[in-house]
Amino acid sequence: MSIVVVGTVAFDSIETPRGRVDRAIGGSATYFSLAASNFTPVRLVAVVGEDFGAEHRSVLLEREVDLEGLIVERGGKTFYWSGRYGEDPNERETLCTDLNCFAEFQPELPPAYRSSRWLFLGNIDPDIQIGVLDQVAGRPFVGCDTMNFWIERKPESLARLLRRIDVLFVNDGEAKQLTGRANVVLAARDILGMGPRAVVVKKGEHGAFLFAPEFRFFAPAYPLQEVFDPTGAGDSFAGGFMGYLAGRGAVDERHLRRAMLYGTITASYACEAFSVERLRGVTQAHIATRLGELVDLVRIDLDS
Amino acid sequence: MSIVVVGTVAFDSIETPRGRVDRAIGGSATYFSLAASNFTPVRLVAVVGEDFGAEHRSVLLEREVDLEGLIVERGGKTFYWSGRYGEDPNERETLCTDLNCFAEFQPELPPAYRSSRWLFLGNIDPDIQIGVLDQVAGRPFVGCDTMNFWIERKPESLARLLRRIDVLFVNDGEAKQLTGRANVVLAARDILGMGPRAVVVKKGEHGAFLFAPEFRFFAPAYPLQEVFDPTGAGDSFAGGFMGYLAGRGAVDERHLRRAMLYGTITASYACEAFSVERLRGVTQAHIATRLGELVDLVRIDLDS
Repeated sequence: MSIVVVGTVAFDSIETPRGRVDRAIGGSATYFSLAASNFTPVRLVAVVGEDFGAEHRSVLLEREVDLEGLIVERGGKTFYWSGRYGEDPNERETLCTDLNCFAEFQPELPPAYRSSRWLFLGNIDPDIQIGVLDQVAGRPFVGCDTMNFWIERKPESLARLLRRIDVLFVNDGEAKQLTGRANVVLAARDILGMGPRAVVVKKGEHGAFLFAPEFRFFAPAYPLQEVFDPTGAGDSFAGGFMGYLAGRGAVDERHLRRAMLYGTITASYACEAFSVERLRGVTQAHIATRLGELVDLVRIDLDS
Repeated sequence: MSIVVVGTVAFDSIETPRGRVDRAIGGSATYFSLAASNFTPVRLVAVVGEDFGAEHRSVLLEREVDLEGLIVERGGKTFYWSGRYGEDPNERETLCTDLNCFAEFQPELPPAYRSSRWLFLGNIDPDIQIGVLDQVAGRPFVGCDTMNFWIERKPESLARLLRRIDVLFVNDGEAKQLTGRANVVLAARDILGMGPRAVVVKKGEHGAFLFAPEFRFFAPAYPLQEVFDPTGAGDSFAGGFMGYLAGRGAVDERHLRRAMLYGTITASYACEAFSVERLRGVTQAHIATRLGELVDLVRIDLDS
């Protein structure tokens, strides 16, 4: 079943110890879409400016991402971000953020998207995320990202949003900030009390936890020998996770556990080159190989 | 089969956000012995002062640790360490280190210990670790710990030592320092080139990797809701790991993978109370419960 993603499509200028790239395609909806497209059809809702050309659209179209929901603002410029990473991929410095046409974005789902059973809300203003939820018919399965900025500035909106979603994706710092807990296990328990039926706590190179009321699961990060560019790893994780569930049309424990591995795999590809370069070329065979490696990495035989 | 451990037996004064404890029993050989004693008989080689009384000996004797190798120095005082932890258990500040009788310690294995097939060298001067290896008959299976201090000060001795051991236990920072690599996967590969047949890279609350030429394994840390006192967690990990292998008399891949989980479990108990308080009371039933939880934490069913 297809999944709708609402988020940003952007141009990123990125500097890492491995090199730099200028005005490459990025944004939460872009990374999510490319990752999810390995598992299910994707419908993208975002806004870009007139500087977003055919060569940029083709990055999404070659993965058959449906762009009916991609608004092009006349005379507008696309969201622009630039940042720099140190040797530690978790140390990120934002050099510049130009919201441009994204500043006034009020996403509107095309009528065909409104009956979607699967939805991902990228990290944007929680009031806008709620506005998207109000447009969908029925009760889709909803994944949602957020960040420190909204946790600080819009706690009431975020609280209302959390009561209406299924899976919250946060990193460990955000989980602690959202709950005031110094311990991830306790933070996750508190978040489950806020509404979501599951919470994914991402720890970058240290892997990711899934906490649900009935079970918990841990996925180690895929052990990369080199992290070229961690930009978009979190959105790529969410894309692999949500895309797999939507593709299978299932959200039981067994599928949620597997979704964690698929999220881990798509995130690993996001880190292996600048921008979406590596993610664009991922095949089913690549994914199957890494799945085998991840399963082997934690394999235990307790018999005898 | 019994295992010989050479290391420190100490008194620790520890302050954490959860409270403090004064002159409690500690030291690498103590933690290792209590952890390993769950799986196999332990023979301890260390030195203490006359201030190490019957009540302290009983902590080891109640776990049937053989103390024939525990030297009591007349008029001497036991190794003393005091330190303080912040909210982040990885931030540790040493307030005081008094080597006392340990300063002149030249460990001598009792004759009965010299034919041991299993040996653990706690974190002490690599020249002394080599001196211990020179006393054993045949070729035992040797686990070894070290630290930044020796990596900086005695690189040549450490290099000679590494050619004679089987498993090196280091944390991620030490692995990087030892090899000059910023990436753990590459650091581990380099360490394997230095001699050991396997290297365990510990990442505290983020779990631990085992790297061997033929395979790699990752064990998540047991998800604790509260870390009371992380002192001794690394030695307890090594104790569970080495003790399990010695108890089973096997070092094939299957047992090495399981040993990682037993190390994880004994380390988790070390963190749950000050000093060795929680570790003293661990039973086979406790271990079996946590083993089940850890296996469940990473369980994946790929069929259907």
